[in-house]
Amino acid sequence: MKHQDISAFYKDLDAYAGKTVTVCGWARSIRDSKTLGFIDMNDGTCFKGVQVVFEDGKIDNFKEIAAQNVGAALIVTGELIVTPEAKQPFEIHAHEIKVEGASTPEYPLQKKRHTVEYLRTIPHLRPRTNLFSAAFRVRSAAAFGMHKFFQENGFVYIHTPVITTTDCEGAEMFQVTTLDQEDLPRNEDGSVDYRQDFFQKKVFLSGSGQLQVECTAQAFSKVYTFGPTFRAERSNTPRHASEFWHIEPEMAFADLSDDMDVIEAAVKYVINYVLDTCPQDMEFCNQFVDKGLLERLRHVAGSDFARVTYTDAIKILEEHNGEFEYKAVWGEDIQTEHERFLAEKHFGRPVFVTDYPKEIKSFYMRQNDDGRTVAATDLLVPGIGELVGASQREERYDVLRARMRELDMSEEDMYWYLDLRRFGTTVHSGFGIGFDRLVMYLTGISNIRDVLPFPRTTGVAEF
Amino acid sequence: MKHQDISAFYKDLDAYAGKTVTVCGWARSIRDSKTLGFIDMNDGTCFKGVQVVFEDGKIDNFKEIAAQNVGAALIVTGELIVTPEAKQPFEIHAHEIKVEGASTPEYPLQKKRHTVEYLRTIPHLRPRTNLFSAAFRVRSAAAFGMHKFFQENGFVYIHTPVITTTDCEGAEMFQVTTLDQEDLPRNEDGSVDYRQDFFQKKVFLSGSGQLQVECTAQAFSKVYTFGPTFRAERSNTPRHASEFWHIEPEMAFADLSDDMDVIEAAVKYVINYVLDTCPQDMEFCNQFVDKGLLERLRHVAGSDFARVTYTDAIKILEEHNGEFEYKAVWGEDIQTEHERFLAEKHFGRPVFVTDYPKEIKSFYMRQNDDGRTVAATDLLVPGIGELVGASQREERYDVLRARMRELDMSEEDMYWYLDLRRFGTTVHSGFGIGFDRLVMYLTGISNIRDVLPFPRTTGVAEF
Repeated sequence: MKHQDISAFYKDLDAYAGKTVTVCGWARSIRDSKTLGFIDMNDGTCFKGVQVVFEDGKIDNFKEIAAQNVGAALIVTGELIVTPEAKQPFEIHAHEIKVEGASTPEYPLQKKRHTVEYLRTIPHLRPRTNLFSAAFRVRSAAAFGMHKFFQENGFVYIHTPVITTTDCEGAEMFQVTTLDQEDLPRNEDGSVDYRQDFFQKKVFLSGSGQLQVECTAQAFSKVYTFGPTFRAERSNTPRHASEFWHIEPEMAFADLSDDMDVIEAAVKYVINYVLDTCPQDMEFCNQFVDKGLLERLRHVAGSDFARVTYTDAIKILEEHNGEFEYKAVWGEDIQTEHERFLAEKHFGRPVFVTDYPKEIKSFYMRQNDDGRTVAATDLLVPGIGELVGASQREERYDVLRARMRELDMSEEDMYWYLDLRRFGTTVHSGFGIGFDRLVMYLTGISNIRDVLPFPRTTGVAEF
Repeated sequence: MKHQDISAFYKDLDAYAGKTVTVCGWARSIRDSKTLGFIDMNDGTCFKGVQVVFEDGKIDNFKEIAAQNVGAALIVTGELIVTPEAKQPFEIHAHEIKVEGASTPEYPLQKKRHTVEYLRTIPHLRPRTNLFSAAFRVRSAAAFGMHKFFQENGFVYIHTPVITTTDCEGAEMFQVTTLDQEDLPRNEDGSVDYRQDFFQKKVFLSGSGQLQVECTAQAFSKVYTFGPTFRAERSNTPRHASEFWHIEPEMAFADLSDDMDVIEAAVKYVINYVLDTCPQDMEFCNQFVDKGLLERLRHVAGSDFARVTYTDAIKILEEHNGEFEYKAVWGEDIQTEHERFLAEKHFGRPVFVTDYPKEIKSFYMRQNDDGRTVAATDLLVPGIGELVGASQREERYDVLRARMRELDMSEEDMYWYLDLRRFGTTVHSGFGIGFDRLVMYLTGISNIRDVLPFPRTTGVAEF
């Protein structure tokens, strides 16, 4: 079906002004007086739609069109008229309107404000609203912007596995099986016989591709994975989903300082990319979701990110412990309220907190010479707190092995991870960005359920 | 660590010729005479490496370097010398070589030819070989090329869910659960009580995001999903993996002919993209994996793809039934041997076979007026057979409902899919590309296990 995207008119109005065009889309509203009608029509190719003016006599099915319900799919051919004095820069004067697919009065998205809670009950229809249309368009642009940044900088995109036998973070995991749950095969001792399962052993959904991208970083120097990961935590917060997308870059011959340079460049790049490619969506989010959004993002894109050690950050926080619900104490996690204090009040810009106590961080992080801390960093940003977690990885075979023993980890299961330290090990570093949180940050949307097209949370997996 | 990617020298030799450079990488081979040594060094930023020349007296640790094992990680600083008369266009004369990480004589990737079967047993190390380095670099470029094509053409990237309650294709699926397999909760009748499972119902790993992208196509007009999908088939073939990546675009206001136009453009785009961005990798594949590769790909990129109906294709095949293992019969699937005959011998270029008998295709495909066939197409390409499966979707509420009843499908479970036909339905179409098969096609690699970094197949899920 030959037609024009509505986005094309916003991109290059001169090319279409005064011309006959055909647009295909859905009616957001239809109103008419006796012989003149107006359709607010949207095709989703950009945030804004186009006003279609239809007149009895100029089209031969005026009554049919005037009687359409909100949500109807229409094909409109008409003249694109530039309207510099009006609110919208152009409109279409219809010559012909075809009803492609009617709607009904029961259509749930009538022209009124719906709550996000209600809209979450109709995930198949909510992308047709302003909010979700903007959210998912920004999500798409942010995903591509991230790919573009890494590809332009020579990173090889690696598809790390979703089904895994390895538990990287010690989090709760989903089990994957083809065993008949109503009739599980048993060993002699009564335990489940996993030799009969599809992979002949117990497997899970991966929570992180990091350990696997480390393998490939030792071949390509710079790699990243970007795919879905899973945590089976029974939490019910606005910031946690059971299925979430994860960007995990990894670089050989790079220490924590190099890592922070790349993180800073990546965050600035993706901010600028969505500001450039989704101006209408971002303007909407700034106006209706989060008033300070554009100013904050532009400020971050233009800042030099600060860097402070965990130990110094705790000293700063201790001076304000009276203001916090939880007191800041060396050796314990930095709470969200602390993160926001540091980024918003103390530094007033994004800040890398580095060199955390080893007890609160993962086994694979490189131990510092002080014996107490590891070369890890979290990037804290104004308005959200932690956005990126990163570390230099322990590249020394003996040190890694000793740490794994301390933590009672199986060397046998992790032989391949240790192999990387036996054969041409390198100083190497990487980071993880929770992509859904990044989209929350970019749009100002405060609930992760509203940046995921089909969110999976405790008890919820629609379709 | 400030250093140069080896790829930078191949891109712009003039900028580095005669300059002091630092490269970080791994020794593929090291050889020396008494006072002069040569290292074949690779950093994975491109297929080809660089020869490092080191000389006793010019570096102060000649013996240490000469004694290194294959696989050692080295940091080399030296002068980049252009060598127009030699096999390689340049080499580095070292001033300083630092051993970043030693290797050992047990390093499995000694300078000799290894079988792919052996290399599959060391997935953590095989990206360091020529074959897998090329395969995964092409994979990365093809993934980005596909994203680029869809983004440039206004498609919104939608992350469809991995965990799903919906079974799109009727294939075998993996179940996902957090129930304790050793102690399953039971209902009174003895069956498993899924109300206690994480999502309070039975859920699976998705085999396709199509039904979900259809929801979003009715909002954005043009969308695509690109992510991992799963089939729990206990097959052991070179073309099937249990976890595979899938590109599934969907377009509103597009019929099967529009669909084929987009498929043809996408396939040509990705071919040209990898030829342009991975010339060294593609040259290697052409020389060592599949002699006719480059010629075939260039031919395809330059062809107009043919179109033939299934009914006509069967007529063509019937004339050659004597040559086939399986006879071609109207009403049955076209076998791989038939696919290859059509693409390679009869048409000599890619061919879309359209309008298949409805009995051998999925419920959601649009029924043609003949009552016997549906508006589906497979793209068959020389050298591989089916590369893309596509169809126009049934957009008529009553027709879809009748077909679902015929097939005894639950309208209640699929209410949301039917809703799309109640509220502003559109003629719409989409397609699916098995991304791993596309990479096989682009590289000439004949086993899917060798284009996936960590393949999951029956009984195999390493790491």
